[in-house]
Amino acid sequence: MYNFQYYNPTKIFFGKDQIKELDNILPKGKRIMIVYGGGSIKTNGVLSQVEEALKGNEVFFFSGIEPNPHYETCIKCVEELKNNGIDFVLAVGGGSVIDATKFIVAAFYYENKNYWEILETNGKYIKKAMPFGTVLTLPATGSEMNSGSVITKKETLEKRAFHSQLCFPQFSILDPQVTFSLPDKQITNGIVDTFVHVIEQYLTYNVDNQIGDRFSESILSTLIYCGERVFLDKTNYDIRANLMWAATLGLNGLIACGSPEDWATHMIGHELTAFYNLDHGVTLSIVLIGVMNIMKEEKKDKILQMGERVFNIYEGTIQERIEKTIYATESFFKQINSPTRLCEVGLDEKAIEPIVKRMLDRNWSLGENGTINYEKVRLILEDRL
Amino acid sequence: MYNFQYYNPTKIFFGKDQIKELDNILPKGKRIMIVYGGGSIKTNGVLSQVEEALKGNEVFFFSGIEPNPHYETCIKCVEELKNNGIDFVLAVGGGSVIDATKFIVAAFYYENKNYWEILETNGKYIKKAMPFGTVLTLPATGSEMNSGSVITKKETLEKRAFHSQLCFPQFSILDPQVTFSLPDKQITNGIVDTFVHVIEQYLTYNVDNQIGDRFSESILSTLIYCGERVFLDKTNYDIRANLMWAATLGLNGLIACGSPEDWATHMIGHELTAFYNLDHGVTLSIVLIGVMNIMKEEKKDKILQMGERVFNIYEGTIQERIEKTIYATESFFKQINSPTRLCEVGLDEKAIEPIVKRMLDRNWSLGENGTINYEKVRLILEDRL
Repeated sequence: MYNFQYYNPTKIFFGKDQIKELDNILPKGKRIMIVYGGGSIKTNGVLSQVEEALKGNEVFFFSGIEPNPHYETCIKCVEELKNNGIDFVLAVGGGSVIDATKFIVAAFYYENKNYWEILETNGKYIKKAMPFGTVLTLPATGSEMNSGSVITKKETLEKRAFHSQLCFPQFSILDPQVTFSLPDKQITNGIVDTFVHVIEQYLTYNVDNQIGDRFSESILSTLIYCGERVFLDKTNYDIRANLMWAATLGLNGLIACGSPEDWATHMIGHELTAFYNLDHGVTLSIVLIGVMNIMKEEKKDKILQMGERVFNIYEGTIQERIEKTIYATESFFKQINSPTRLCEVGLDEKAIEPIVKRMLDRNWSLGENGTINYEKVRLILEDRL
Repeated sequence: MYNFQYYNPTKIFFGKDQIKELDNILPKGKRIMIVYGGGSIKTNGVLSQVEEALKGNEVFFFSGIEPNPHYETCIKCVEELKNNGIDFVLAVGGGSVIDATKFIVAAFYYENKNYWEILETNGKYIKKAMPFGTVLTLPATGSEMNSGSVITKKETLEKRAFHSQLCFPQFSILDPQVTFSLPDKQITNGIVDTFVHVIEQYLTYNVDNQIGDRFSESILSTLIYCGERVFLDKTNYDIRANLMWAATLGLNGLIACGSPEDWATHMIGHELTAFYNLDHGVTLSIVLIGVMNIMKEEKKDKILQMGERVFNIYEGTIQERIEKTIYATESFFKQINSPTRLCEVGLDEKAIEPIVKRMLDRNWSLGENGTINYEKVRLILEDRL
C-alpha cells in the first residue's frame, strides 16, 4: 500500500428536495452569480428551485458554458463577476459548468492577468479563489467533490487540466430527482465515465490495498447493478441516488488513496474527442476495451481479481478468466448502449493514424507503468476497429 | 436511500515516515502543546520523531490522559494552554487522547466557564475551538477523522459524548509502522471496535443503499482478511496499513451516509465498561453476538446479505444461513482472541440485573427501530452467559 495524502472539505447535501437547503447554507445579502450551461435547468425546474431558495440575495446569471468548456467563455464570466461586484458563485449544472466555475473563481483573483498560465502550470500559482458551491444536475465527472478542472482553448483546441486545493466547492447539492429528466444518452455517458474513473484508479497492479480495491469494486458493482436496471425502471429514486453518489465517490480522491493510477484510457479518449468530436463517455467505452485487451499481461492480476469480485468469474484457466472478464466489461457497456468499437461511431482505420502521430509528437508514455507508447496506442485502437 | 449531509475537512497524511511531514504542515514559531497519555510514545520512538519534526516551534507537554479520558484531567490541560499562551494542540496517541483534545480545544474558548455544559448539550454552544492535529498511535476509534468525543466525569462516572464541526482535527498523521510495537490485546480491541462501528451503521434494515452497504462490507472483509493474518505475520506493513485505514474509514461519517444506524451494542457495552471496568472492545464482541441472536428477526435481511457478501454463506434455509452468519461472526472474534461470553471475563448472571436496571431507569429504547428496551437488554446479556 502506497503512502498518500487525502483532503476533501466539500460539504455534501444529498437527497430529495435538498436544493432548498441553499436558504440555510448561504448567508443573506450576498451578490451571487449563477453560472450554467444551456436551457435545461429552466425547463426541468432546477433553476426556479434555486431562485426560490436564494431569495434575499442579489442574483446574477451567466449562461452558455459549453460541454468541454471554453477558456474564452470563462474569461467573459470573470469580467462579469468584476463588473457586478459578485462575492459568491453558484454553479448549476454538470461537470462542464463546475469545471468552468473552478477556473473562473481562480482567475478572478489571479495576479498575473495571463489566465491561461493557470492551465499551463496546473494551478501552481493560484493564491486565492472566490468561494463557490454547486447544484449538480448530471452525475458523471465527480467535479462536484474534487478540486480539478479541464478547460479547452477554442482558438487552438488545446485541452488542459489544473488542480488547486483552493478550488474545492464549499458545498455541493445532489438531488437525484433532478436526473429523472435527463436523456438516456446522458445517463449512459455518466455511468461509463464513472466506471472508467474507477478503473483508472483500480485496474493497475496489486499493492495489497485491501480497502482501496474493495471500495473500487463496490462502486463498479453498484454501477453494474444500477446500469442493468435504470432504463427498465425509469422512475426508481434509489437507482438514481446510487448512480449519483457513485459518480461523486468515483473521483473524489478517496479510492485512489494508496494505489497506483493509470489514466491511459482517458488520455487516448480525449484525443478521439478532440479529433472526431465524440462524447467523452463514448470514447471511454471504446478505448477501455482496447486497453484491457492490449495490456492484459501487465494488468493480469487485477483483471483476474475484478473478474472474481465484480463479475463472479471463478471458472477456467487464467487466460480464459481474463478473456471472460474483458467480455463481461464489454457486454455491460453494450447493455447500457455505449459503443465499444470505432465502426459504431462511423470511424475506420483512417481515424487511427492522426491519434498515433499526436502521441508520437508528444512523446507520451501512458499507463501506470509508462509503457503505453504510440505503438501501443495504435494496437489499442486497431483492436477496436 | 435516506437523505444525508457529509462533511469532513480533516487532512490525512498516511504511510511510512509521515510524522516528519509535521515540519511542512505547521508554520514555524508556534507555541504547541503536545497532549498524550502514558509513556508508550516515549519508548516506541514516536515522541522523539514528533519533537524532531517540530524543531523551530516552542513545544510544551501535557501527559496523563487516561483511557476513557477524565473531564477533570482535561480541565487541567485547558488551564495549561492558558498559562502558556498555546496556539496549537497536537494530540499524540489513540482515541482517548484525541477525544480529550477535542474537548480541551473547545473548552479553551468556551464563554460559559461551566465546561461540562459542552457534554450536556452535545456541543451545541461551541462557537470556536483552538486548531489541533493528531499523530495516531492506536487504530480503533476513528476519532482522528471525525468530530465526536466521549468524556467521563470521574466524580460521578458519567460518560457523555459531544460533536461539533469545529472539532475536526486539521490534520491527522497515520504511520502504520507505529502500530508494530502495540500489544496483541490492543490490536484485537482495535479490530473489534472497528468491526462493530461498521456493524452499527450497516446491520439494520435495507434502504437500497448499494454504495453504503458495499463500502461497509469492504471494511468488514478487510478486517477479517487482516485479522486472520496480523498475529501470524507480525512485521507485515500492508496488514497494519489496511487495519489502520479501515479503522479511520469505519467511523469518519462516510459509510453512514444514506443509511439508518443502530448503536445498541455500543450503548450496552458502555454500561458493561462502567460497571465492571472491561475494555471497550471486549464488551463489544460479547454484546454484538447477543444483539445478533436476539434481534435476528428484525435484522434478517441484512444478516443474510452480510452472510453472502462477507462470509460467502449461500447454502441452507434462511434460518440456517442466519445462524451460520452469527456463528461466523463469533468465530472471527474467537480467532482474534476477543471473548464472546460473559463467563470468559469472570461475570455471571448477577452481572446482568444492574445493567437492566440502568436501562429501565433511563427508559432507553435502543436500536435502529427503538425496540431494544430493558427486557430485550436482559435477553441479550442472558444469551451471553
